Amino acid sequence: MREIQILARIRSLAEGGRQHQAILKGIGDDCAILRPGAQRDLVFTSDFVLEGRHFQLDTHRAADIGHKALARSLSDLAAMGSRPLFCLVSLAISPRQTSSWITQFYRGLLDLADRFHTTLAGGDLARFDKVIADVICCGETPRNKALLRSGAKPGDRIYVTGELGGSAYGLVTRKGAAWRRHLRPKPRIEVGLILRRLGVSACIDISDGLSLDLHRLCLESRVSAMISSALPVAQGANLDQALHGGDDYELLFTAPGSRRIPRQIAGVPVTHIGSITKGKAGELWLDNRPLKPRGFDHFA
Amino acid sequence: MREIQILARIRSLAEGGRQHQAILKGIGDDCAILRPGAQRDLVFTSDFVLEGRHFQLDTHRAADIGHKALARSLSDLAAMGSRPLFCLVSLAISPRQTSSWITQFYRGLLDLADRFHTTLAGGDLARFDKVIADVICCGETPRNKALLRSGAKPGDRIYVTGELGGSAYGLVTRKGAAWRRHLRPKPRIEVGLILRRLGVSACIDISDGLSLDLHRLCLESRVSAMISSALPVAQGANLDQALHGGDDYELLFTAPGSRRIPRQIAGVPVTHIGSITKGKAGELWLDNRPLKPRGFDHFA
Repeated sequence: MREIQILARIRSLAEGGRQHQAILKGIGDDCAILRPGAQRDLVFTSDFVLEGRHFQLDTHRAADIGHKALARSLSDLAAMGSRPLFCLVSLAISPRQTSSWITQFYRGLLDLADRFHTTLAGGDLARFDKVIADVICCGETPRNKALLRSGAKPGDRIYVTGELGGSAYGLVTRKGAAWRRHLRPKPRIEVGLILRRLGVSACIDISDGLSLDLHRLCLESRVSAMISSALPVAQGANLDQALHGGDDYELLFTAPGSRRIPRQIAGVPVTHIGSITKGKAGELWLDNRPLKPRGFDHFA
Repeated sequence: MREIQILARIRSLAEGGRQHQAILKGIGDDCAILRPGAQRDLVFTSDFVLEGRHFQLDTHRAADIGHKALARSLSDLAAMGSRPLFCLVSLAISPRQTSSWITQFYRGLLDLADRFHTTLAGGDLARFDKVIADVICCGETPRNKALLRSGAKPGDRIYVTGELGGSAYGLVTRKGAAWRRHLRPKPRIEVGLILRRLGVSACIDISDGLSLDLHRLCLESRVSAMISSALPVAQGANLDQALHGGDDYELLFTAPGSRRIPRQIAGVPVTHIGSITKGKAGELWLDNRPLKPRGFDHFA
């Protein structure tokens, strides 16, 4: 297939999906066009998924890769308490990918996009020797209401959604619920929207492991954190996987003790795991012992 | 260097650059935050630059690659007649890239960003076995004023800015002005802004060659085009390079014959090269003979 034929197919798949009314022009021009809502802020994120780093072609089907590529970016929107509007998808494929592979990649991505009313509005397409995708997501929030990493204050309580370590455990077993969890992470969009309305103080998504992402939140907020080892560990996973395993895409957030946080939000359990304290920015404590952040670091 | 250290360096470089007032939050959170202007539309584009496809590490310095990565996306904004606001940069590097290489990549990118008041507001960073970058640009236009590919009408005249084939010729000689042109393409932002005010009917940037990009414009406008071989060919280049060579990043646009188009816009020459005609969508004619589009197609 030539590029124009591949693009025509992607365009027809995209136009079969949800078209957000704010998108005036999607695929087919030099740029996509968005008409932003009044009194809204827009939030933007981009995330790679790279063959051999984030997935393997022999264990991940095309639709899984498409799902994961979008889920990573949607998870960042969730962490800002933002409602998704659209995505751009830059995809490079090797000569080994058939036209059916390309179709399945976009189907996996668009199934997830549809669930969250997200328009596929454009992107780029290239040939390379490996499969790489970069997904850009844009969402909106009411003005000044985006949840930031930098808002945690000493005395705030620390919470996580769902269970931790399941994705890391799935990567070991390559079967069952944990492996499906690894293949098809669920971005916590609805939870993020409710957290924003609840007025939590800070939020981040756990993409690289609880310890590393809590460290990042504390760095931006210039605070320390004490957490307990009584974590919501996913079935089969161990404490190490819950603390440092990547790809869970749960939300980690903080709120003043005076703020009532439900034990379940949008059907997802919420667990109180510790407290924000004064101290060296980014310093972590587990059961009163120093905890070194060592989640997934591309460059460690 | 660990990821957090690399990010701190990129952040400090970015914060040394222009900070557009519409960007409420740049690097350092899950997403960047933009407060859009009233009565404005926003336009978005993403473009890969891939090692071995768009550049070679032995001939392109890090700053050249950073420049080109952003220039490709800015050129898409230029083609919409849009004023740049911000960019996101997803960069993957191999262990061969030193910290100085990373710094130079962002310096090259930020030098160009500064020239067009573009804030580096976020992105992604990953390790891979080759260097790949995906740059997302966002710009703004007054409502309903973005220049589209789809507005060309039979009878409209066809114009190009600057000279064609220079970048393809530079790729052969690897020296002199043509090679510098290939390494450091100039996005025609100012020209695009003026074209928008002049009320031209359609516009596209020439990234993959005149014939292929004119074909794309004609497909979207459902028209044919007749052009003359009396093209503004860059010094040293031949007609074939001017017709089919990629990476020139000039603007190709159409306007009704009644619209006066200056011979020079923002210091860039403008040449009348042909006319839009009724006929099969996308069909091209050169000096009254059929012209097959055969510019750069990743999948041909």
